[in-house]
Amino acid sequence: MNSVEDLQQIVAEILSIDAEVEVKAQARLDNLTKPQGSLGKLEWLAARTCAIKKDLAAKVDRKTILTFAGDHGVVAEGVSAFPQEVTPQMVLNFLAGGAGVNVLAKHVGAEVRVIDVGVASEVNGEGLIVKNVRRGTDNMAKGPAMAVTEALAAIKAGMEVARDAIADGAEIIGTGDMGIGNTTPSAALFAALLPAKVEEVTGRGTGINDAALQNKIRVIEKALAVNSDRLGSPLEALAAVGGFEIAAICGAIIEAARCRIPVVVDGFISTAAALVAIRLNDKIKDYCFFSHMSAEQGHRIFFESMGLEPLLHLGLRLGEGTGAALSMGLVEAGLKIMNEMATFGEAGVSESE
Amino acid sequence: MNSVEDLQQIVAEILSIDAEVEVKAQARLDNLTKPQGSLGKLEWLAARTCAIKKDLAAKVDRKTILTFAGDHGVVAEGVSAFPQEVTPQMVLNFLAGGAGVNVLAKHVGAEVRVIDVGVASEVNGEGLIVKNVRRGTDNMAKGPAMAVTEALAAIKAGMEVARDAIADGAEIIGTGDMGIGNTTPSAALFAALLPAKVEEVTGRGTGINDAALQNKIRVIEKALAVNSDRLGSPLEALAAVGGFEIAAICGAIIEAARCRIPVVVDGFISTAAALVAIRLNDKIKDYCFFSHMSAEQGHRIFFESMGLEPLLHLGLRLGEGTGAALSMGLVEAGLKIMNEMATFGEAGVSESE
Repeated sequence: MNSVEDLQQIVAEILSIDAEVEVKAQARLDNLTKPQGSLGKLEWLAARTCAIKKDLAAKVDRKTILTFAGDHGVVAEGVSAFPQEVTPQMVLNFLAGGAGVNVLAKHVGAEVRVIDVGVASEVNGEGLIVKNVRRGTDNMAKGPAMAVTEALAAIKAGMEVARDAIADGAEIIGTGDMGIGNTTPSAALFAALLPAKVEEVTGRGTGINDAALQNKIRVIEKALAVNSDRLGSPLEALAAVGGFEIAAICGAIIEAARCRIPVVVDGFISTAAALVAIRLNDKIKDYCFFSHMSAEQGHRIFFESMGLEPLLHLGLRLGEGTGAALSMGLVEAGLKIMNEMATFGEAGVSESE
Repeated sequence: MNSVEDLQQIVAEILSIDAEVEVKAQARLDNLTKPQGSLGKLEWLAARTCAIKKDLAAKVDRKTILTFAGDHGVVAEGVSAFPQEVTPQMVLNFLAGGAGVNVLAKHVGAEVRVIDVGVASEVNGEGLIVKNVRRGTDNMAKGPAMAVTEALAAIKAGMEVARDAIADGAEIIGTGDMGIGNTTPSAALFAALLPAKVEEVTGRGTGINDAALQNKIRVIEKALAVNSDRLGSPLEALAAVGGFEIAAICGAIIEAARCRIPVVVDGFISTAAALVAIRLNDKIKDYCFFSHMSAEQGHRIFFESMGLEPLLHLGLRLGEGTGAALSMGLVEAGLKIMNEMATFGEAGVSESE
């Protein structure tokens, strides 16, 4: 994939999920020893996974979380509570297994793959997948964060990493992010693509105070103004006010949909990436499970605008793929319900009158 | 425990959870490589579990779900979509491992214990714990469902079963219920003890239609009117408009609190039992994790009235302990975060500016 046209062709070829398989899966669920629909979203997760995979025997035993890291020139504007050096430090923490995503991935039996797609400094560590497009974006408050060709390169990197994970056996993909300052480009993308008011989609990220929040809102408004002639398409907006890891997550989501693999979208940043993918082809939405409602203000606006519902409401706001990990466990639970519960006939249980 | 006075003494002796340990646990969480509080309720679950157990090294590796079964004379009033024979049929399904609770318990590594505390017909099955107080309650629309001595006997049975599970190593207890018709006594208990309007706390249970719902509301109103002089205390209300499995769940919750073991309260029916326990001693509330917001109308009223929040919002309405199972996995995830994540110092990650 080397051009805008290539990307457009790739996303245009993504097929709808299989509604007929979803109906058949639900019929199987309805014959199990429980009132119909009484396991709520667990049943929906199971039926939807079958519809995505076109397979009534769908499994998600092998789970991979892809955590993409990138840096952001806009941190020069004082939008984050943590210094930029934390991005590579956390990449090393992921590789050492000490971060939140490592613990929760292990809890649900998922593998974590860590990808440098745009960290500002050189990172070396065993297991790191290096796909660095450039060492951090430019300051979007002063011009485009990336060239369109760079955004395309990051999307391509995300697609490649997802394709490799699927080739290695992943039956479900989770997304994750690391990038100091990345709630700022994410909020800008929500503002541009939902669209929404900047103050509605801008929150405190890792924990800024009131004054810094007001500054962050002004920075995002400035970025959108400076780049106003570069917001005409989802891809241009992604390049102008996005980030490398956001573009790569977008690519991973596109590739998962192409391969008919369910993708569990993590929090605020991953959802901004998913929004770009969905704006490229609305069918991609049906391949996504949105893991949780982030505590980051603005995530709610996405769900309301899109008529979608997240799975968990646990006040998470860490990113990394932590929410995706927890929700992968729910998808697996739903499939186990479908495959391991007894039917009314098998158990000799009387049905509803 | 053989008298009302005995029960009163037992619940009066329950101590507060350890606020100091909770603060220390949160301090440890705050030193891990993540913005403070960014894992939301997972952090709260970890700190609260430590406070309950008075132990910063608290674990919930060994998990037991107690699923209590009982029948209800009020089914004669046409309040349920399923026939009463389903109660013993489902008990056998639990013992055979084919029910929803079995699948979800296995998913999170929990054991399920099944207790007949008031099934209307004789049930025999390998592994069944038999504590049958009487073969089903009387029709509460015509008089008290149970004598107070019977409610006490069922509470005692629940306490014994919980004590045995804890003696066998359970580090966390989950509650579950089976009893055709049991949303009816549960709604009556919410109406009597929150208190709340009957129509606000009465829902469709396993799936009744509009006409049956109106009938169910009338039946509950009649039960509360017929028993109006028996609602003066939580125990009397439990006896008059409750059920054997509800009383036993109440006993299990009391015993867990006595033993400083966290108890994950399942859905609508288990919450009605928890409400009785909390009305006996408000401190018991802090030992409970409420697993989910049931799709059953009225559950929401409990949370709003009590200022409490459930963990999951997945549209579950099955009971059995299914929601408790899923939430036990979250408690474990929270503790793993506390115990397995790297600190800022260990990982060489810079802290917030």
